[in-house]
Amino acid sequence: MTIEQIEAAATRLAGQARVTPMLNAPLLDAAFGKRIFVKAECLQLTGSFKFRGAWSAVSALAAGAGGVLAYSSGNHGQGVALAAARHGKPCVVVMPSDAPPVKIANTRAYGAEVVLYDRATGDRDAIGAALCGERGLTLIKPYDNAQVIAGQGTTGLEIAAQATAAGITQADVVVCCGGGGLSAGIALALEARAPGLRVRTAEPDGFDDMARSLQAGTRLSNARKGGSVCDAILTPQPGEMTFPTLYSLAGQGLSVSDDEALRAMALAFTHLRLVLEPGGAVALAAALFRDTSPDVICTASGGNVDPAIFADALARFGG
Amino acid sequence: MTIEQIEAAATRLAGQARVTPMLNAPLLDAAFGKRIFVKAECLQLTGSFKFRGAWSAVSALAAGAGGVLAYSSGNHGQGVALAAARHGKPCVVVMPSDAPPVKIANTRAYGAEVVLYDRATGDRDAIGAALCGERGLTLIKPYDNAQVIAGQGTTGLEIAAQATAAGITQADVVVCCGGGGLSAGIALALEARAPGLRVRTAEPDGFDDMARSLQAGTRLSNARKGGSVCDAILTPQPGEMTFPTLYSLAGQGLSVSDDEALRAMALAFTHLRLVLEPGGAVALAAALFRDTSPDVICTASGGNVDPAIFADALARFGG
Repeated sequence: MTIEQIEAAATRLAGQARVTPMLNAPLLDAAFGKRIFVKAECLQLTGSFKFRGAWSAVSALAAGAGGVLAYSSGNHGQGVALAAARHGKPCVVVMPSDAPPVKIANTRAYGAEVVLYDRATGDRDAIGAALCGERGLTLIKPYDNAQVIAGQGTTGLEIAAQATAAGITQADVVVCCGGGGLSAGIALALEARAPGLRVRTAEPDGFDDMARSLQAGTRLSNARKGGSVCDAILTPQPGEMTFPTLYSLAGQGLSVSDDEALRAMALAFTHLRLVLEPGGAVALAAALFRDTSPDVICTASGGNVDPAIFADALARFGG
Repeated sequence: MTIEQIEAAATRLAGQARVTPMLNAPLLDAAFGKRIFVKAECLQLTGSFKFRGAWSAVSALAAGAGGVLAYSSGNHGQGVALAAARHGKPCVVVMPSDAPPVKIANTRAYGAEVVLYDRATGDRDAIGAALCGERGLTLIKPYDNAQVIAGQGTTGLEIAAQATAAGITQADVVVCCGGGGLSAGIALALEARAPGLRVRTAEPDGFDDMARSLQAGTRLSNARKGGSVCDAILTPQPGEMTFPTLYSLAGQGLSVSDDEALRAMALAFTHLRLVLEPGGAVALAAALFRDTSPDVICTASGGNVDPAIFADALARFGG
């Protein structure tokens, strides 16, 4: 992966994906005694950064390529579904049957065919491979795909420019981390464009495979497959392509509890007027409750959340 | 009021207020069969467009001027409080005692002294005038102030530029309307910069003084002073300075029920990942449920809402 691939993706995304704002809230800064900047990717098309990687990958396909297939807990699938629809290509999304209903419904609404499987017993890779073979579809992996990482890296180009505009030259950049596509893409962009900014991954407690892998120097797995409210980022282990990049560029990984993610959602509601999903709020939670740098930037990477979960976060932490 | 005053305000606001995004959601468009663009002023500093007018007015004060006073149901007060704090000036905000607790708390957190009065029996003008006299404060009215209208008009400059960039040359621009400062400012900016865009005011049913006044050609009052969840825009009658502008430039006014405003909040949650307060959602509600133009732009003018009211909107309309 090179910065040139990220810049090429940025050219393809221009006018298709949104340049999202980097927001700051004076009262949140005052409450936590540091400056916190939030890259609001929940405002991206389809409600998460995943549209960037999806558009990058779909727009890079050969001219005669047929349809595409993605497996996804929901956000990658929505991104690929909309990108495929806008390219006039058929799209199949393989999703766990316990994915949030709003994500399943939206993926269908963007025009994709949704195939459900059981997260505990099913093998999404096998299901996906079989469908690709039968129907001649191109698999777009959620993070182990160079064009996807390049697309997510465009978030890092924007962070570099927005941080420079805000006068920030030294800061941690805390990034919500599942397989590591967004983290790796941002790390590569910052290395080239804002070397004083350092990526730190944020994961849910118990699903901190990236943090442990970065410490061990080798890819480790999580003991559990599910059981956190942060559905978007419960990947089994770091990506093959993303881990080496993060091992070379990222700082120590961070993790937060589900309750801390829900509390960050309530704080984003009050101070930033943003709707975040739990997995999209772990970086804000880690920025608030773990990171100790005086200036911290974090990704608010997704906002596709069922109303009942959001209302519960407000009831418990919105006081 | 002239476009030059709005441009001068824009110069003073540069780097102080945010240029907010104009958002669009493919699934919302599909559900309603038209293109809906949302100017997300809930992402403005202090959570509403009011910071624009406040900064415009405070930054236009004479060099030796002392502190400032505002009366406000909450959003204007928060805007003036932060603008005054960043100018190093003392600030008093006169608020009704039934204002949402989050607005009272935030106004204090921005450094203002809050003076509460009873909306049914008290006279905020008299209280404000007395305090201004005693303490040598300058009153910053919420809408009948040329610098405030000019500041709110910077929203219109941005809408004109963003609509042009999106290829929109003909559209209704539905604006949340209390006293009419935002509506009048935007109307003046659009007249000069995007004459194919026409302002229509949006108000709560029963508090549609502007719509009725525009129809009658003279300023009419509302029968009630309170009783709608849309606290931010329950003004008794159109502003003296704002009405003539809107009478000359705006289309027919619109109004929506409280339930429609709450439903628009739930739709903004799902499709735009924005937190709106009821009064900040009436324009989206009117754009969705009343306006019939194929392209419609609306302001999401504020997002300072108590969690319980937001959770109630989700529980009732978030399905």
